Amino acid sequence: MVRLTYENRLKELGYSLPEPPKPVASYVPSVRVGKLLFVSGVLPLVNDRPLYTGKLGREVTLEQGYEAAKVAALNALSIIKSSLGSLEKVRRVVRLVGYVASAEGFNEQPKVVNGASDLLIQVFGEKGKHSRVAVGVMELPRGAPVEIEMIVQTK
Amino acid sequence: MVRLTYENRLKELGYSLPEPPKPVASYVPSVRVGKLLFVSGVLPLVNDRPLYTGKLGREVTLEQGYEAAKVAALNALSIIKSSLGSLEKVRRVVRLVGYVASAEGFNEQPKVVNGASDLLIQVFGEKGKHSRVAVGVMELPRGAPVEIEMIVQTK
Amino acid sequence: MVRLTYENRLKELGYSLPEPPKPVASYVPSVRVGKLLFVSGVLPLVNDRPLYTGKLGREVTLEQGYEAAKVAALNALSIIKSSLGSLEKVRRVVRLVGYVASAEGFNEQPKVVNGASDLLIQVFGEKGKHSRVAVGVMELPRGAPVEIEMIVQTK
Repeated sequence: MVRLTYENRLKELGYSLPEPPKPVASYVPSVRVGKLLFVSGVLPLVNDRPLYTGKLGREVTLEQGYEAAKVAALNALSIIKSSLGSLEKVRRVVRLVGYVASAEGFNEQPKVVNGASDLLIQVFGEKGKHSRVAVGVMELPRGAPVEIEMIVQTK
Repeated sequence: MVRLTYENRLKELGYSLPEPPKPVASYVPSVRVGKLLFVSGVLPLVNDRPLYTGKLGREVTLEQGYEAAKVAALNALSIIKSSLGSLEKVRRVVRLVGYVASAEGFNEQPKVVNGASDLLIQVFGEKGKHSRVAVGVMELPRGAPVEIEMIVQTK
Repeated sequence: MVRLTYENRLKELGYSLPEPPKPVASYVPSVRVGKLLFVSGVLPLVNDRPLYTGKLGREVTLEQGYEAAKVAALNALSIIKSSLGSLEKVRRVVRLVGYVASAEGFNEQPKVVNGASDLLIQVFGEKGKHSRVAVGVMELPRGAPVEIEMIVQTK
């Protein structure tokens, strides 16, 4: 029995990969060293604009934050595909850090970051199960409510 | 001359390892890749409740923050033992990141994170000496004052 | 054609490496594991004092924040040289995380962290191109406006 490719599984789930972000001056979208791919911090941008702006616990609802984390994860997958040539080269998702822009008293960072985690499990199955850190920060670039960083083990 | 096992050293110091946290849906307590074990962010939970809640510089004193960091480190050691089978499989503590929930104007994050660092040195000796990052964040899950993440080199 | 050593390139750019920070009790400036060097969080200290104190978007200007990030990167290079014996042992800068102490509404963290990124590119060229994370935190040790952490691949 043949399994779907990870990218086809994404499509079946109703998602398509966005264009990977353009390389910028001072840093690159990812760096590979040995079997580890370090992905730069990724925002929930859609057509180069944040899907939402503001903080959880104030302007942004839990549902919107979850959605934003998912979109950031899609952008990260786009970088990973662009860097490795194919998502099939992913052997394991090792680490996900979710930074959540949080208003005073908001403590549901894990539920927000689940938007990224759930997508990774849906796409990669067992190989998508990752170690994770979720924290509430003061502000994020471009007023985004969520930023994620990832480390992936490659084949 | 035989040295104590790391776990017996813990006992001699008066600590016992808590039960490792139950696996949750979207992520796992740790992921091993090659000789590196990435431990998920760990809170200072005791019987599944934060030892203290609130922020350093406001509700939580420096002494309580230090204690909370130590308890979080104990929980991390519990995950490491559970993942590797024994603390004896630890070759080196590589990295400790301490996120400290901080009220405006609180800048003693290093003294708080020392609660985790000191324990690691007491238990592992030279092998417990780690690189470290200490920052003051806005909010943490469940209102905890401290969250730590770790990377460990295994034998 | 011979290239300048990285340290001579630093000198040509007008910089000199500060003394590496003294080892402290509970952690060490860096830990090497295999080909990866994990550098501890570094502040923009000059003669053991923060170059500036306060937050971006309030006491500290964008230009000062950029400068602070550069000074923190110089301190990190000093640690790397001290650990590896020479900057020539750097094969690739893998990861840079920039934590920016941010007042409410400040979202230009990337422009601040560019102070560190630009220096790394100037010194190491292509090998200085790194993956990066930039976030806005609540407070940093000693009231510093910026803290950076790095992972470097060694030869």
